[in-house]
Amino acid sequence: MKRFQVLQRHLDPPPSTPPPPLLPASSCAAEQNSTHVSTMLSLSDHWRLSNIESRQYYADENGRTKRIPILEAEKHEFGAKQECGIAFTKCLGQIALQPNDEDKKRQLIQKKQVVLVIGAGDATGGAVAKRFAKEGFVVCMVRRTQEKLFPLQEEIVGAGGEAHAFGVDARNEDEMVALIEHIEKSIGEINVAVYNIGANVKFGILETTSRVFFKVWEMACFAGFLTGREVAKYMVPRGEGTIIFTGATASIRGGAGFAAFAGAKFALRALAQSMARELGPKGVHVAHVVIDAAINTSWTLQNLKDASDLVQQNAVVKPEDVADLYWQIHQQPRSAWSHELDLRPWKEPW
Amino acid sequence: MKRFQVLQRHLDPPPSTPPPPLLPASSCAAEQNSTHVSTMLSLSDHWRLSNIESRQYYADENGRTKRIPILEAEKHEFGAKQECGIAFTKCLGQIALQPNDEDKKRQLIQKKQVVLVIGAGDATGGAVAKRFAKEGFVVCMVRRTQEKLFPLQEEIVGAGGEAHAFGVDARNEDEMVALIEHIEKSIGEINVAVYNIGANVKFGILETTSRVFFKVWEMACFAGFLTGREVAKYMVPRGEGTIIFTGATASIRGGAGFAAFAGAKFALRALAQSMARELGPKGVHVAHVVIDAAINTSWTLQNLKDASDLVQQNAVVKPEDVADLYWQIHQQPRSAWSHELDLRPWKEPW
Amino acid sequence: MKRFQVLQRHLDPPPSTPPPPLLPASSCAAEQNSTHVSTMLSLSDHWRLSNIESRQYYADENGRTKRIPILEAEKHEFGAKQECGIAFTKCLGQIALQPNDEDKKRQLIQKKQVVLVIGAGDATGGAVAKRFAKEGFVVCMVRRTQEKLFPLQEEIVGAGGEAHAFGVDARNEDEMVALIEHIEKSIGEINVAVYNIGANVKFGILETTSRVFFKVWEMACFAGFLTGREVAKYMVPRGEGTIIFTGATASIRGGAGFAAFAGAKFALRALAQSMARELGPKGVHVAHVVIDAAINTSWTLQNLKDASDLVQQNAVVKPEDVADLYWQIHQQPRSAWSHELDLRPWKEPW
Amino acid sequence: MKRFQVLQRHLDPPPSTPPPPLLPASSCAAEQNSTHVSTMLSLSDHWRLSNIESRQYYADENGRTKRIPILEAEKHEFGAKQECGIAFTKCLGQIALQPNDEDKKRQLIQKKQVVLVIGAGDATGGAVAKRFAKEGFVVCMVRRTQEKLFPLQEEIVGAGGEAHAFGVDARNEDEMVALIEHIEKSIGEINVAVYNIGANVKFGILETTSRVFFKVWEMACFAGFLTGREVAKYMVPRGEGTIIFTGATASIRGGAGFAAFAGAKFALRALAQSMARELGPKGVHVAHVVIDAAINTSWTLQNLKDASDLVQQNAVVKPEDVADLYWQIHQQPRSAWSHELDLRPWKEPW
Repeated sequence: MKRFQVLQRHLDPPPSTPPPPLLPASSCAAEQNSTHVSTMLSLSDHWRLSNIESRQYYADENGRTKRIPILEAEKHEFGAKQECGIAFTKCLGQIALQPNDEDKKRQLIQKKQVVLVIGAGDATGGAVAKRFAKEGFVVCMVRRTQEKLFPLQEEIVGAGGEAHAFGVDARNEDEMVALIEHIEKSIGEINVAVYNIGANVKFGILETTSRVFFKVWEMACFAGFLTGREVAKYMVPRGEGTIIFTGATASIRGGAGFAAFAGAKFALRALAQSMARELGPKGVHVAHVVIDAAINTSWTLQNLKDASDLVQQNAVVKPEDVADLYWQIHQQPRSAWSHELDLRPWKEPW
Repeated sequence: MKRFQVLQRHLDPPPSTPPPPLLPASSCAAEQNSTHVSTMLSLSDHWRLSNIESRQYYADENGRTKRIPILEAEKHEFGAKQECGIAFTKCLGQIALQPNDEDKKRQLIQKKQVVLVIGAGDATGGAVAKRFAKEGFVVCMVRRTQEKLFPLQEEIVGAGGEAHAFGVDARNEDEMVALIEHIEKSIGEINVAVYNIGANVKFGILETTSRVFFKVWEMACFAGFLTGREVAKYMVPRGEGTIIFTGATASIRGGAGFAAFAGAKFALRALAQSMARELGPKGVHVAHVVIDAAINTSWTLQNLKDASDLVQQNAVVKPEDVADLYWQIHQQPRSAWSHELDLRPWKEPW
Repeated sequence: MKRFQVLQRHLDPPPSTPPPPLLPASSCAAEQNSTHVSTMLSLSDHWRLSNIESRQYYADENGRTKRIPILEAEKHEFGAKQECGIAFTKCLGQIALQPNDEDKKRQLIQKKQVVLVIGAGDATGGAVAKRFAKEGFVVCMVRRTQEKLFPLQEEIVGAGGEAHAFGVDARNEDEMVALIEHIEKSIGEINVAVYNIGANVKFGILETTSRVFFKVWEMACFAGFLTGREVAKYMVPRGEGTIIFTGATASIRGGAGFAAFAGAKFALRALAQSMARELGPKGVHVAHVVIDAAINTSWTLQNLKDASDLVQQNAVVKPEDVADLYWQIHQQPRSAWSHELDLRPWKEPW
Repeated sequence: MKRFQVLQRHLDPPPSTPPPPLLPASSCAAEQNSTHVSTMLSLSDHWRLSNIESRQYYADENGRTKRIPILEAEKHEFGAKQECGIAFTKCLGQIALQPNDEDKKRQLIQKKQVVLVIGAGDATGGAVAKRFAKEGFVVCMVRRTQEKLFPLQEEIVGAGGEAHAFGVDARNEDEMVALIEHIEKSIGEINVAVYNIGANVKFGILETTSRVFFKVWEMACFAGFLTGREVAKYMVPRGEGTIIFTGATASIRGGAGFAAFAGAKFALRALAQSMARELGPKGVHVAHVVIDAAINTSWTLQNLKDASDLVQQNAVVKPEDVADLYWQIHQQPRSAWSHELDLRPWKEPW
């Protein structure tokens, strides 16, 4: 087996970025809340504080992360979901953690949450990467050509996030095994994996070469299997994690001319369903999103009839819409997981 | 036809509730933002400001409402979705609206958003009502027995919301027509309607009386049709609105013993699908949520095997989970609407 | 409860019909087979000989009927399905039945098999009636207006069959209960029931009156429930029988404008599925056939675009095609029952 | 490309087989019908007579074959389907064909109909081969190991049929291209192709090797694609043919442990659906049969709990049942094609 060579570029946030303005320690809400935090933490020993360095604050329940805006701490309600309001800033050296829990919490505080995006293209994958980065996730992005990821990486890092760009062929088992092991060991726990490689082609059955039939399956399904299995290896022992597969119209309909593409997408859906049924009870949330319409990409704009009209009418799915939905799926509590959801613009005929 | 008698109870928020603390006019963020608001408003003529009386602030784009927390205005980003940050308070008599837009905006400012919950029981329906109330919606709640709604109404009003309780039989066309007309004329525009009446029964086919077969359909489907059609009458001309139907496992599976219940739930799903295809292009978002598990209710706790264990493990759907999902569905932008979503706890076999 | 008045017309076959030519007794294959028959019958005590009067010969296994052409007895194979070759004619007074079985067999020989067709219109229902009549079944046909059944009845009787015409409103529980009781007591065991009432209407949701919504469900679903339940009452104790429900495109797709029709058809599909799961293990075969295209009727010919062209190209489903499929479904052995099948012409886009 | 080596064994029917008894020429129905045949043939120029040598008689309409029992000619009806009654025997040298059509008909008379069975194992595939052989089809059977086909070949030939055994790896494109070309050129037109290779495995996702995931797809889907595409190349220009894919429960449900198998079966279903939509309007009938239960094989008998009990109760699908259904699918007229059908025994829970 050839050894996997991690093609990874590190980017530090630009030094010119001004540090976020800190509230004065004497009057900041955080100080007042330190007691509060300790109280809440004592109620439930699985709350986590994370990402303290990058000024992102989270309350987690059962592995589901919820960002708590820093200045909302005072009015945050402790309702049905027993959410926890947490607010403090860098100025707080003295978070009043419960004495008996300190080690665990300190560890939790330092843990980074990683999202792995396989197929971090310019549209959906990129939007997902940015969405999770905005929520404080460390982003690990994968495309076959590492260089193509650099603009996205720079954008995320420029906005204060952390992003790692990997040039990996997701169809190569050795590379995928090594990649995911590397991330888990050197970067952080993969909490979310998004599989987003598409391979939409249309050929009449007589014109479908075996090469096309195989390649489309390899890209749209086999690489998804490798991704799912490898991240599951780490998620299952931890009893938590989210895996999201991007589907399409062809995931549920074998249209004329789509033997190859629908073949691969049906297969990916079967994989997602099978994994969901097996891994749900092990704490891993597997979801499949059927995007039943064109997504607004440069390709769509050039090839779809009346594309710019449709875009202006919000009649084309935006990459950010998909990213929002994926974030919501990840946020779902254990008591209510969606496995399959569709998505289409209001004007889409279906 | 017998005339519909609106059984409606008005509740004022308890006088003992202290008014929300206002920021001093001289230093409030709102004042600073008034210019900003006017700038933004000039960019896009369909933004709306609403609910100013109850200190809830919204920015709307294409009929999708997004609550803007009052103190986030400064840092609100104007990103991919072109969201608008708006912040001001009661102290602002002098909102700097664009001169040429003033009348329209003044009108918009005074419009209330209404959520109509048909089947506002103690579990899901009630949770949905409270969730939307929390977001500033005026809640119109319907059950057959008005009195049963009073505790819920009191809870919402006590928390500063506005809630109207209606004792209406949703299967009665005259009552439903009158109810919805009354709400639209006297309370506000119904922006969201949630149909949540269940009728889960299990009988072998030979033991299924025609009375049961009909009643279950009448409750779980026919009343949903009346609800959907009547609210659509008002939503379609406005080109906006959200209608959500609550489904169940029996919506997609006709199990042994469920001829009546699955019959009604399949039919409701057909209704939802048919309305979605027809009304989507008219701006009305119709969704169907398949809750593929028991919901945590007092009935479930008494009847489900190991219910308390399951609840402790988050292995039973909570009414608040469903309410969160419904809120997210309503928040979806026009470019990305989900029509069908499932929901089950992590441990649920399926 | 009002008493059901059986509107039933008896028709004798025209006396001018010449009797079927008999092979001479001295040389007929049947005589040679008489021993053979007795041997087979001794092997399995649930074989039946039926309809001896009308020169139709059957071998039944577990309630599935298979017609045995009279002169194929010699070469009939006794293969994997343990089919029984039986051949004799009226000339055979001396069928060599096993002595110990005689009473039972005599009884079986005299039992008539009945097919009940609810919605025996001029197209599908009529074709089903004729198909089963051709196979030796006594046909009980139901429409709201008895007179409309007379031409069909005359056609079947004229061809040597037995047909009873009933003017019954299938939505009326009392009438349906009485009808099926009457048939079972006075005519014969209902071995097959076909529910074939359609109610295809198309209205936008705002134009769908509650009357239409209810009527369509009552005709296309509720009457199907009454039919299914009532025949199941007699089939379940006997541990055999076939119930077939006619579906349509709208059984699996809620298209725009089809809230009422799809609502009813989805519900009928749920009923069929639920009954199949419950009654299959009790020996009753329940099937649902999705006819995903127009059927060649006088209505279709007048209303479908290019109908005559399509008919000429065999691009419209023929009523006889449906009848053939229903007959095949009924013929399926217990070891291999289909529950759901689709049907469309070769040129149909779907 | 390596050249394909046709591994083909020819078997002649055993000379000891007595010729079928002929009716005396002087009194046979066939003679009387010769005129009749000519009349019918003049009505429709696409009727075919085939397989005259093996004493099988067919009437074809639009590519659908219907066997006409030899002595039924007199009473055969010319009904809605315009079926043609044809009856004659070897004694008829002088079939009275229409003069102007003679050449065409003579050619048709000599054309052999071929069924290609990929995956002609001991159970389903073998039963399909025998069923079509019984109907007069020349059988071309394929397995990886040619020798394993010999008993089946001998059984078919021994019964008077024609069978060719091919040792071909259906996953190998070159071999498949060469095989199908060889059959078309040297044996006869492939009128029916049945794809029946299964690959049922069950592994937890973490235990599913990429080798297993790939192999299962290659066997259960990719080889099906090669089969479908290659036979379609010949069928499409002729505007007729039937292609049947064998599905399983895993074709529509991704169960826990079935990521690989369901992945492949979902994909095969997509292929079938896509081909059906594309090729239906070109005259080729593509069907997918979901066998939702165990089939009675030696493996099942050894591994299924209470297998022998179930078999005795007809609660396990028999290979012959599947073969019967496939034959019926092929017999469907153009005006009414089924694409998807399920199949399970009466007692099967689902």
